[in-house]
Amino acid sequence: MLMKTASQSLTEQLCARFADRIRNRLLAPGARLPSVRLCAEQQGVSVSTVVAAYDQLQAQGLVVAHKNRGFFVRDLASNMPFVHAGKAQLAIKTIANTPVDAAALIRGMFHPISDKPQPGMGVFPAQWLESSFMPAAVRKATGASALRDLSLNYGEPKGDSGLRRALSQRLGALNIHADPSQIITTVGATHALDIISRTLLRAGDYVMVEEPGWAVEFARLDALGMRILPVPRRADGPDLEVMAQYCQLHSPRLFVSVSVFHNPTGYCLAPGSAHRLLQLASQHNFHIAEDDTYSHLAPDHATRLCALDGLQRTIYVSGFSKILAPGWRVGFMAAPPELVERLLNTKLLATLTTPALLEKALAWCIEQGQLRRHAERIRTRLDQARARSVKLALAHGCTFAAEPAGLFGWVETGVDTDALAQRMLDEDYLIAPGALFHAVRKPSTLMRINFATTQEAAFWAVFARLRDGAYRL
Amino acid sequence: MLMKTASQSLTEQLCARFADRIRNRLLAPGARLPSVRLCAEQQGVSVSTVVAAYDQLQAQGLVVAHKNRGFFVRDLASNMPFVHAGKAQLAIKTIANTPVDAAALIRGMFHPISDKPQPGMGVFPAQWLESSFMPAAVRKATGASALRDLSLNYGEPKGDSGLRRALSQRLGALNIHADPSQIITTVGATHALDIISRTLLRAGDYVMVEEPGWAVEFARLDALGMRILPVPRRADGPDLEVMAQYCQLHSPRLFVSVSVFHNPTGYCLAPGSAHRLLQLASQHNFHIAEDDTYSHLAPDHATRLCALDGLQRTIYVSGFSKILAPGWRVGFMAAPPELVERLLNTKLLATLTTPALLEKALAWCIEQGQLRRHAERIRTRLDQARARSVKLALAHGCTFAAEPAGLFGWVETGVDTDALAQRMLDEDYLIAPGALFHAVRKPSTLMRINFATTQEAAFWAVFARLRDGAYRL
Repeated sequence: MLMKTASQSLTEQLCARFADRIRNRLLAPGARLPSVRLCAEQQGVSVSTVVAAYDQLQAQGLVVAHKNRGFFVRDLASNMPFVHAGKAQLAIKTIANTPVDAAALIRGMFHPISDKPQPGMGVFPAQWLESSFMPAAVRKATGASALRDLSLNYGEPKGDSGLRRALSQRLGALNIHADPSQIITTVGATHALDIISRTLLRAGDYVMVEEPGWAVEFARLDALGMRILPVPRRADGPDLEVMAQYCQLHSPRLFVSVSVFHNPTGYCLAPGSAHRLLQLASQHNFHIAEDDTYSHLAPDHATRLCALDGLQRTIYVSGFSKILAPGWRVGFMAAPPELVERLLNTKLLATLTTPALLEKALAWCIEQGQLRRHAERIRTRLDQARARSVKLALAHGCTFAAEPAGLFGWVETGVDTDALAQRMLDEDYLIAPGALFHAVRKPSTLMRINFATTQEAAFWAVFARLRDGAYRL
Repeated sequence: MLMKTASQSLTEQLCARFADRIRNRLLAPGARLPSVRLCAEQQGVSVSTVVAAYDQLQAQGLVVAHKNRGFFVRDLASNMPFVHAGKAQLAIKTIANTPVDAAALIRGMFHPISDKPQPGMGVFPAQWLESSFMPAAVRKATGASALRDLSLNYGEPKGDSGLRRALSQRLGALNIHADPSQIITTVGATHALDIISRTLLRAGDYVMVEEPGWAVEFARLDALGMRILPVPRRADGPDLEVMAQYCQLHSPRLFVSVSVFHNPTGYCLAPGSAHRLLQLASQHNFHIAEDDTYSHLAPDHATRLCALDGLQRTIYVSGFSKILAPGWRVGFMAAPPELVERLLNTKLLATLTTPALLEKALAWCIEQGQLRRHAERIRTRLDQARARSVKLALAHGCTFAAEPAGLFGWVETGVDTDALAQRMLDEDYLIAPGALFHAVRKPSTLMRINFATTQEAAFWAVFARLRDGAYRL
């Protein structure tokens, strides 16, 4: 609620609030501001205050007015003064088609907007990740002689050999047999997916991606000039009929997939679908990048394409941001032997090596079985949190579009979640609207919630109040 | 020298030696093996031993025989079984045109082939980098509460704010005025250059790069599908006439340049050239990425484009791999305000954030002035090493193609340095042949030496012996 103070008028406060959201990308480029009348009603201020605030935003170059259509957020990032006219047209067109403003969700994840638990976050709260073994492993990696060894030279191109041995063992437990020489460490799983797409695809190539899916994946492939073919994700796996049609029409060379606890639905791949999917890949000659980011939240026996396929045409990707230390940025991939050299070359050209110190510390966390036990504790805690969250969601009139599982819930709200997200920000809550998980942004009544951060009735009360005042799509 | 042993025949030893080099990319794909006769002479074995060894290599799929032309190294990395025929043709063509096998030099840098000081290395020996302040900074960053803060969340998208403040100060001393908000941290300077090219260019765009220049830069731009326009680098700066012609013909959008202690020549940009270059950039509307990797080896008053231009159309790139800790992989860029958002989006899509723990430790190394004093000590040591190296080089009949300065010497040997490099490997020395520094690989009589690792007479004696037995180009 805005309150007039001695130092700042209501107009200034309202202007500053919108300016802040635009700069932090919580209002996406191209987004329409609420109408003057609606904004006045929502914020409890007069129409003239809103008009004055919108004028100030326009004067600051943050929004543009379109006659009879209202005020729209300017695209600050595509302010390209040196670009030629022809290219600028192209750039604008691309931006208009850009799947999602992934930056909005990502930056929200990195800059908590308040101390409240954030339902839109993609990770566990920091205190869930605390452990005593992690600091011990860091002490070991930063002892005088280890620190020298791990700092004063570039380290191994494929990544610390201790970590690669530990990962080879860990993968063995998942029935994925990868020699340490098939493993390449990366700056988080994101970097592994980036390296894979740059190695296997060139600009203009077709790539299949599950939809709904993770915003960063759509945005990166689009930025690299690749053509995205969205594959509907069902409860048992990707829609194989749609994939078969894409293969006939476009000969895509790669499919990017989350088999276990798919983001945002929480779906897990069924064994039969996995088998048929691999047959399709063989028939149509494409590779599969299997993003197992949520690996540690699932049982070892969950169905993974790489286990069935034996890393023939599948590449396994995972990391430790969800379970141990997001700030360390350690991820990895395990690839078919004949692809390893090409993937390694791309890693070298993009970043040379990756920080061995953190990789070595991680190896020690894995080796003593400590990370496994830590993951088990987190799973138990998540199960309890999920039970509470689901109960609260149902009590507040929501339904689940997918059976609740893993870290995320895929919630049917009945209202436009893009608009709801803006209203929730007024109450210091960041939510993840369904539109963010689509290759081409379109209105959605779904939202993704994090079960670890939606256990409190306070959030659901605010949610229900704002939803009931919102427009239905 | 090969010596027959009980366990391994001469044939087996010779085959293993070549297989090792091919796997470690010290023999580049497409490279021709020495003729059977020459190899027999060089290795002091019989012709039949060489024939048998080459046959074994062929059976192992490491080399292919071309009738009447000899044996050539197969390209292991481009073994692409799933690629369509049309694309495969394209891939082979691209590889044939690929500027250099940058991987060869890079992997050599990472895997020292022996305990001898390596003249082809691009960095100081580890013992030159040792300091007491670096371990102290790491202890501070890994204390219980700091470790939690720096590990259990993703950190700031632009990078640790403490480091960005310290870098802003450091840049001020170079007369480059950058607010911390204009600075983005990266996984080494390489990652910064990667982000810049992905942000400003799309596949098919033209980009100007100095030649001779750093192999990784050519190889990365080529892999991203960009079209490289090589600009001859002179003692006072890039050839502006050639650049003007490129601008007329191709409207390139970016120029990548090393102003200070250019790699491999050691040249430094003259103020007049810098001014005219910026005028050209303004006239033809292109950006400049100024790679200041060797920043700490040069005086603060050295001419830098970013200082003259005030970060208008220049982007400053540097890192700490040369002076403090290559293994930490910390680099950064400072960009014009209107480009920061776009560059940051590319960073997020490629790796999300970068490891804050190492960034924070680095900030502490900079803040107390310790890194500055450390760099001064290394400069003094390098000056002494350079004096010794130059004397030895001249005494062994070499001349310098560029006035010796900075870390690297650009040495005229009078013989084909590609062939010489192979012979030097037999004696456990990795040298950097001139061909590696060109956009399109061509024979060269130049080689780059590292002044820190060529101070010993032993290396020069081996060099002179093998050079005198080599063919002249």
